Amino acid sequence: MPIDWDKVPDGNAAGREMFAVMRELFPIPRSLTGDGVRQTLAVLQRELPVEVVETPSGKQIFDWVVPQEWNVREAWIEDPSGKRVVDVADSPLYLLGYSTPVDTVMPLRELRSHVFTHEDPELVPYRTSYWGEQWGFCMKRRVLDELDEGDYRVLIDASLEDGLLTSGEVTLPGTTALEFLLSTHVCHPALANDNLTGVVLLWAVARALADQPLDLTYRLLWSPGTLGPLCWLDRNGDALDRIEHGLVVSCVGDPGPLRYKRSRRGSNEIDRAAAHVLSDGAGILEEWRPYGGDERQFCSPGFDLPVGSLTRTPHGLFPEYHSSADDLALVTADALAESFRTVLRIIDVVETNARYRNLSPQGEPQLGRRGLYQSVPDGTNPEMAFLWLLSLSDGDLDLLAISDRSGIALSELRAAADILESHQLLERLPGEA
Amino acid sequence: MPIDWDKVPDGNAAGREMFAVMRELFPIPRSLTGDGVRQTLAVLQRELPVEVVETPSGKQIFDWVVPQEWNVREAWIEDPSGKRVVDVADSPLYLLGYSTPVDTVMPLRELRSHVFTHEDPELVPYRTSYWGEQWGFCMKRRVLDELDEGDYRVLIDASLEDGLLTSGEVTLPGTTALEFLLSTHVCHPALANDNLTGVVLLWAVARALADQPLDLTYRLLWSPGTLGPLCWLDRNGDALDRIEHGLVVSCVGDPGPLRYKRSRRGSNEIDRAAAHVLSDGAGILEEWRPYGGDERQFCSPGFDLPVGSLTRTPHGLFPEYHSSADDLALVTADALAESFRTVLRIIDVVETNARYRNLSPQGEPQLGRRGLYQSVPDGTNPEMAFLWLLSLSDGDLDLLAISDRSGIALSELRAAADILESHQLLERLPGEA
Amino acid sequence: MPIDWDKVPDGNAAGREMFAVMRELFPIPRSLTGDGVRQTLAVLQRELPVEVVETPSGKQIFDWVVPQEWNVREAWIEDPSGKRVVDVADSPLYLLGYSTPVDTVMPLRELRSHVFTHEDPELVPYRTSYWGEQWGFCMKRRVLDELDEGDYRVLIDASLEDGLLTSGEVTLPGTTALEFLLSTHVCHPALANDNLTGVVLLWAVARALADQPLDLTYRLLWSPGTLGPLCWLDRNGDALDRIEHGLVVSCVGDPGPLRYKRSRRGSNEIDRAAAHVLSDGAGILEEWRPYGGDERQFCSPGFDLPVGSLTRTPHGLFPEYHSSADDLALVTADALAESFRTVLRIIDVVETNARYRNLSPQGEPQLGRRGLYQSVPDGTNPEMAFLWLLSLSDGDLDLLAISDRSGIALSELRAAADILESHQLLERLPGEA
Repeated sequence: MPIDWDKVPDGNAAGREMFAVMRELFPIPRSLTGDGVRQTLAVLQRELPVEVVETPSGKQIFDWVVPQEWNVREAWIEDPSGKRVVDVADSPLYLLGYSTPVDTVMPLRELRSHVFTHEDPELVPYRTSYWGEQWGFCMKRRVLDELDEGDYRVLIDASLEDGLLTSGEVTLPGTTALEFLLSTHVCHPALANDNLTGVVLLWAVARALADQPLDLTYRLLWSPGTLGPLCWLDRNGDALDRIEHGLVVSCVGDPGPLRYKRSRRGSNEIDRAAAHVLSDGAGILEEWRPYGGDERQFCSPGFDLPVGSLTRTPHGLFPEYHSSADDLALVTADALAESFRTVLRIIDVVETNARYRNLSPQGEPQLGRRGLYQSVPDGTNPEMAFLWLLSLSDGDLDLLAISDRSGIALSELRAAADILESHQLLERLPGEA
Repeated sequence: MPIDWDKVPDGNAAGREMFAVMRELFPIPRSLTGDGVRQTLAVLQRELPVEVVETPSGKQIFDWVVPQEWNVREAWIEDPSGKRVVDVADSPLYLLGYSTPVDTVMPLRELRSHVFTHEDPELVPYRTSYWGEQWGFCMKRRVLDELDEGDYRVLIDASLEDGLLTSGEVTLPGTTALEFLLSTHVCHPALANDNLTGVVLLWAVARALADQPLDLTYRLLWSPGTLGPLCWLDRNGDALDRIEHGLVVSCVGDPGPLRYKRSRRGSNEIDRAAAHVLSDGAGILEEWRPYGGDERQFCSPGFDLPVGSLTRTPHGLFPEYHSSADDLALVTADALAESFRTVLRIIDVVETNARYRNLSPQGEPQLGRRGLYQSVPDGTNPEMAFLWLLSLSDGDLDLLAISDRSGIALSELRAAADILESHQLLERLPGEA
Repeated sequence: MPIDWDKVPDGNAAGREMFAVMRELFPIPRSLTGDGVRQTLAVLQRELPVEVVETPSGKQIFDWVVPQEWNVREAWIEDPSGKRVVDVADSPLYLLGYSTPVDTVMPLRELRSHVFTHEDPELVPYRTSYWGEQWGFCMKRRVLDELDEGDYRVLIDASLEDGLLTSGEVTLPGTTALEFLLSTHVCHPALANDNLTGVVLLWAVARALADQPLDLTYRLLWSPGTLGPLCWLDRNGDALDRIEHGLVVSCVGDPGPLRYKRSRRGSNEIDRAAAHVLSDGAGILEEWRPYGGDERQFCSPGFDLPVGSLTRTPHGLFPEYHSSADDLALVTADALAESFRTVLRIIDVVETNARYRNLSPQGEPQLGRRGLYQSVPDGTNPEMAFLWLLSLSDGDLDLLAISDRSGIALSELRAAADILESHQLLERLPGEA
């Protein structure tokens, strides 16, 4: 069913609201596992019935094993004078993700091998070591270079123990069992565009969809990158054929143009819908490539789901990527609002799209007898939509295809199809278009 | 079998002859039903064995019902002084088609609601009311505006009674039962380009084809728009799979360029043949659209026949359309002659086209032994046609496709194929190409 | 298995070597049959185990019959003063190929009907009469025009008797029974580009391949044009489905650009491989046309083998074609060397190409655990090749297709695939890619 745009929040208001939540979520120390993700989901739960789903450490997930859960109480370095040169309490970026516990004193030259810096001396890089046991800190290179020789006290009070990997899910039931999956990653600490913009965008989309009567069932997933989607695929293995469309959303708050990357098959309905929405010049359309975000898991050849990716400047292509420069100043409420509206427009297209069969296919039906005929067809009246629908509705072409062929807007075709359906001239076919 | 062009009338003579018949047909008051169509067919019957086929009022034809037959004896308006301001005896356009009988006196302000005018004050519009009971007249707006107030006498002495809907058919048997349908509408009164040009063009084509030995059986249809073709489809329901090609012809006398609109499928042989003929720049090729003439019925999805449309400036796109300006001055004998020749060229292509199978497919056959080899192939001698035919005649590609691939003219390929067939090197496959 | 380029002779050396052999082969009087072909093959046999295969006169080969064998001992014309105006001992071009024996005296005006000249008065044309019994000489027109009237003595001491049609074959077994056919014609006397360049190129390619461990079995064929390939097709009738790729090579020594003409189907792997090699601008890609060299026989519809054609300026398109101007001066060692390298590059592509199936298709496999993950993907490291291979290796797309999609070089993809195969992440599929 098409989106009722009157019920959709105004763009400016939505943008400001998303930005406010993002500001609140920014300092939380998220990682692949641990309490940071739980705290993040708790914020979302204030406005949305987010179900928390957890997978235990040690569980085999396809080619992977869920690692131990990591939590940090305290982590810092003190210089020979006892001054803290870096403290995770100031920013979770300072600590290498999944650092093992340490409590020791070592000379600067030994400490250096545990410190990661960025090529820009004023930026702190974002680094993790999920799969190799080590400890480390991330610092501005300028700060590191200014440190005096001497012995440094290093403390990492962290636990790495059997626990859980945490995801959040929202399900919005539609009138059919067919599903639209929206997924974003939720594992990055103190980074804004990648990935808080995705987190708050899905939060805003879920709230907007909750007010709409829709045909599809919407499933929204906030989960740690790579392993989160794999856990979801593992526990939904029997029901993946219900996924009719999917969208991975990330990096949607910077001022760059919107980009839709096609699913692996490239010609799924989600791909045609996104191309239709972006065809007004609002964004860039890209072919599938096996590099980027969690669409890599959904589209891996063993699943090959119809899942595309929506970003603004994607993964790795903005200079602030995976550094302390990816902060709230990089993101604008306007960019978030446009991304929000674009996701809803794509949803509107797949909800509007349908396939029909002409029930009076032998010759044109007598439209005039039904009050559907305008005597002066000039190319603008609904009669043209009626004629295109009757001519091409053979159960194969959907409204999107008829819109492309005829040049008539999808919404206009749908309205005309609804009229013809009410006159028993078209029959809507079950299943997705 | 290719057209024998020596037997085809010279273009200028054919153009003048069509124009003369059109002049004679112009004043006859044609409509959806009634004696005007019968009189029109009677003129055609002087030179051609046109069979008159009639369908009774009340008969269900798919989604339609054949209406009552309408005939007019007299219809006029007299002003308060008794002067006739409009009289159907001067032009059938003055009367709204299918007007119900009336004999009354009414003030000008009431009469105005029964008068239709054109946006150009000097033109009389062409209007009908086949499916809604009403009466009315069509006038120049300047004349209407100059009328004095007062009481006007209105007379329409017309009958609307159970009767017949009249079509004309000619069948020219070929050596096979496969058919080529040529159709035009015959229901417009006192309009020249739409539709007398189609009427006389099919008349000239039928006469020209009668002199030719042809493979296909040609069926020509003159019938009232929309309902005429539907009646034809209804009574030929069992034999529609014999229709291998079809062409709806209308608006073929104005000086605009020729246009071929593809059939609904778009890639039927008729579409490829017309594209081949127009590929020399002689005209415009258009994709299917469900708006235009009677191809809408033949190509409706329940029939989906391989029927294209040939026009010059089509339906609705010339400013004189459906007005008194669509008169004999809009049409030229030259334009008619070129349209005539183009229809015959399209027929020539489908008659020439064929599929063959190479009977000596292992290696090239020894052409020299058969006197078919030129020792200095320079790209112009028939040997190139032989080689292309032998290489590509696998029973799948037809001569049209081989012509497109090789750049060799269709007629040259056919002549070469006839030679190879006579040497048992090619076998012509049955059925249409 | 990819070509080991370290073992391939340096281009300059190969070019000089081919040129030297060509110089030795130039004067030998080759024809459709006879000792000239045997002498030519004997030269090749010095460095290569060429098997001589002969087919007897009178044998039916598809639509053809092997003709009698022709050998010439002596052939000349003496003018009235006893001076030899032309002598086959000076060049085999002077004698019309397959001339019947003659020993007579005739006046100049009668002799003229037996003399063939070229449109350029300083060139001797190359002419044969394989299938019509006649005798004749080829001369420069200037020389003919300067002859005095009088009686001329004509002697052709030739034999035309039941004998054999001679071809040479080399087979280089690979690890599989699938075959790559390389063919050139060997029937032209004293012409360089057409056809000695093809003869020596295949000789050099065969020697280079003999040093390589390869997957495919290579079959090289030197045979008289048209009838030689037909005899080969006849005697290999049961094994033609082993031919996975083929290349007809001729006219590869002139300075014109390389040209690859696609096989009849146009989309065989050989066509995609040649397009890949020429995609760097090194040559021209042409569609199939049934005119040219022996690809006409291999690609005739009854065989339709995946055989393309590699030339520089092809058959009939260089002005020196089939005349005494097609001599050693037309050919350069550099052009030969580049042609040699191009054939090996095409072979390298089909040896490198393969199809794989992802053995861990559900999600991405954990590359890091296997030491295959670089933490800073920048588009240049092998991880990108791993990701593309894992994403697209569904058993359908081959490396060539993945290279086209990803922009990653074929050799890089193959190296990455070998690594993934060693980790049991990909399985190589049997048969050709």
